[in-house]
Amino acid sequence: MTTEQFDFTSFVEGGRRDLATLVRLESVSAQGRMLPETADAVTRLLEAEGFTVRRYDGKVAPVLLAEAGEGPRTLLIYNHYDVQPETPSELWDSPPFELTERDGRLYGRGASDDKGELISRLAGLRALKARHGGTLPLKVKWLIEGEEEVGSPSLADFVRDHASELTADGCWWEFGSIDPAGRPVLYAGLKGITCLELRCRVAESDLHSQFGAVVDNPLYRLSKALASLRDDSGRVTIPGFYDDVRSASQADLDAVATIPDESASLEETYGIQGFLGGASGAEFYRRLALEPVLNINGVHGGYEGQGSKTVLPAYGFAKLDFRLVPNQDPEKIVALLRAHLDARGLDDIEIVELESHEHPSRSDLSHPFVRLAVDVAREVHGQEPVLHPSSGGSGPMHPFVEHVGVPVVAAGIGNLGGRVHAPNENVRVADFGAGVRFACEFMDRLSRM
Amino acid sequence: MTTEQFDFTSFVEGGRRDLATLVRLESVSAQGRMLPETADAVTRLLEAEGFTVRRYDGKVAPVLLAEAGEGPRTLLIYNHYDVQPETPSELWDSPPFELTERDGRLYGRGASDDKGELISRLAGLRALKARHGGTLPLKVKWLIEGEEEVGSPSLADFVRDHASELTADGCWWEFGSIDPAGRPVLYAGLKGITCLELRCRVAESDLHSQFGAVVDNPLYRLSKALASLRDDSGRVTIPGFYDDVRSASQADLDAVATIPDESASLEETYGIQGFLGGASGAEFYRRLALEPVLNINGVHGGYEGQGSKTVLPAYGFAKLDFRLVPNQDPEKIVALLRAHLDARGLDDIEIVELESHEHPSRSDLSHPFVRLAVDVAREVHGQEPVLHPSSGGSGPMHPFVEHVGVPVVAAGIGNLGGRVHAPNENVRVADFGAGVRFACEFMDRLSRM
Repeated sequence: MTTEQFDFTSFVEGGRRDLATLVRLESVSAQGRMLPETADAVTRLLEAEGFTVRRYDGKVAPVLLAEAGEGPRTLLIYNHYDVQPETPSELWDSPPFELTERDGRLYGRGASDDKGELISRLAGLRALKARHGGTLPLKVKWLIEGEEEVGSPSLADFVRDHASELTADGCWWEFGSIDPAGRPVLYAGLKGITCLELRCRVAESDLHSQFGAVVDNPLYRLSKALASLRDDSGRVTIPGFYDDVRSASQADLDAVATIPDESASLEETYGIQGFLGGASGAEFYRRLALEPVLNINGVHGGYEGQGSKTVLPAYGFAKLDFRLVPNQDPEKIVALLRAHLDARGLDDIEIVELESHEHPSRSDLSHPFVRLAVDVAREVHGQEPVLHPSSGGSGPMHPFVEHVGVPVVAAGIGNLGGRVHAPNENVRVADFGAGVRFACEFMDRLSRM
Repeated sequence: MTTEQFDFTSFVEGGRRDLATLVRLESVSAQGRMLPETADAVTRLLEAEGFTVRRYDGKVAPVLLAEAGEGPRTLLIYNHYDVQPETPSELWDSPPFELTERDGRLYGRGASDDKGELISRLAGLRALKARHGGTLPLKVKWLIEGEEEVGSPSLADFVRDHASELTADGCWWEFGSIDPAGRPVLYAGLKGITCLELRCRVAESDLHSQFGAVVDNPLYRLSKALASLRDDSGRVTIPGFYDDVRSASQADLDAVATIPDESASLEETYGIQGFLGGASGAEFYRRLALEPVLNINGVHGGYEGQGSKTVLPAYGFAKLDFRLVPNQDPEKIVALLRAHLDARGLDDIEIVELESHEHPSRSDLSHPFVRLAVDVAREVHGQEPVLHPSSGGSGPMHPFVEHVGVPVVAAGIGNLGGRVHAPNENVRVADFGAGVRFACEFMDRLSRM
């Protein structure tokens, strides 16, 4: 039975109703709003499909681990039911917690990230069961947390502690997207991340700037530190920073070479004044997917108003993030940074770690599980998929690879105009429907692999 | 006739009444408040003492040029009648525009800077006339502007255009102070200044920080620029920066060597974590008075809230001031900075000049006019005066030296706790009285020099 022969209409319709139900629940994890209630609603939806659902206490919200079906193959799915805050609410064109269709899109907080993803998969699973006479022809283990938007503080420990229960043939990650040309975009990895603050203080209170003759300047100290961390090409200059970087595989390099070059579109959208090293095409995507990066998120200290103020600031700070690639270790990077600053006489610069690290992770692009996702995406969308060896972004993928030992692939229903994390978050109706079909076919094909 | 034999009481009392009158006039130049009215009031006070007062249009407020007296000597006095804004008003313990005595101090906006200085001189002039039977035994030229607190935008041109009318044996600058030990503190120079903003933009809007892999970071570019401008000792590293610096005279070096070392007190007051190069004593004051300085007033760009935000900012800026010494030229310094940045591949850093420059100026410490001020201060205060070859701060002194060709000395009634430019600005009653005596004796001695 193929995609063309099966009518998904009723399953897509059912999914839209369930998505409306979930969007109505204001599960903002940053504010601790309606998290147990949303876990309850997800549990009811899963139990209705025959899942047994175990519920665990997370640091912020319940973690759900559900299981259903039987077969020679096992699929692990990871999603989350929490969402970003809806603020600024006044910028929404329809109520943020009311799923609203307009111009071929469904608007609402979580419509894409991640309730839309979750529900499209559930609707696909229902279709699969219908296709198989009411039974699920593979084992599905579904891990659904409610803390993703606050950095998944419980997830790494949970995955480690429950690794033996999570074993599977592969893990289907919580997101994915459709590009402006209608191509499905898949990812086989995420970068790691560590977010830091550098702080420098020279006095307890600001001074008149004449004292710059005799008192050091915290913004000079910070500038010296920041300027020492990379070169003009963007390469990080902290000794040892690249020591643990795993060489990109030929498959990784081949993959970035086939990604359609959207760099000019990015350049225009953001008004970017050129790319580092004039990168485009394969080099652009190689850097984005495979190179570790130091980024300065902010620097602040002293006067910021109109005109001049002749002040010598007492204090300044900088915020940084390091995006890491396998096998860099966030804690080691922080230690290397400390040693680098100390060796340059910058031991007065304090390093503060802002939140929990995430380790980098990339799966083997040639793994049959990853190839299956690509093949099914090609069939469902009728276009050659775009497979990134890694997103340029970060997320809690590493514990699945490290502790469970599964390959991971990200495929889903997001779109460039989906305004994830922003007002007017949306999913295209057509992409939601395609997501239902993809879920059904992906699980069906996996069950027979 | 000596200080001891003359009773200044009634002149000090009269000065206090006049000061109360002037403080009541809210002559905030930054807000254009009551400037012509205050110029009127000052004109009335001067005309009552026989001055002919000419009034000129300044860019912001009237400029007054008054003249009275006859004799072989001529004194040029410079003061200003405008004041800083009184905000934040709620931090005043008495109404800012009502001269109020408390605990031996007179509180009010302008009580010290600069209405207190101006009126103490006027009261001293009245005493001098009384001592000389109603005549003024020297010519006094008094230049009083109303734009000092907004950077004296009209003054340099005015002094140049009226240089022939301003000739004198010396110029008495608008301020001076009494230190915590009761020593009079005089200055024979001011540093020059140029205030700049460095700006860097890489895109029209902020990006997700993953794009740090392919898009440059404006805060890295700014940090690199800032770090390149000086070394750890504070020495400016812009090629040519020191080329025009006039060597300090032996008299300048001798003067800084005799300044009582208050560096430890400064260190404690501001909680300073050590001085550049461990400077104290003569070296501390040499740097403060005689060395040019680059100071970073502020750096801002990107995220500044709690925790982390993985953003790549589109834009950042830094504010700088250069404090200059003779014979550095502010415009040349800006050109050297531009060339330095360009030579380092930092031609993407824009330089914006924030306000009009001020040139540096230092008078000869051995000039009889400067020595006279020191001698009279010693007699009036009964303590050895402290003579700084230059303040570490800046002001519009240079046109007087350059165009009029007069030596300049600053002596006055300020004090460390005087809260100039801040709420609860004040002058000590005793210092105001000493200022009246100093003015009388200084002019009397000059008339006989």
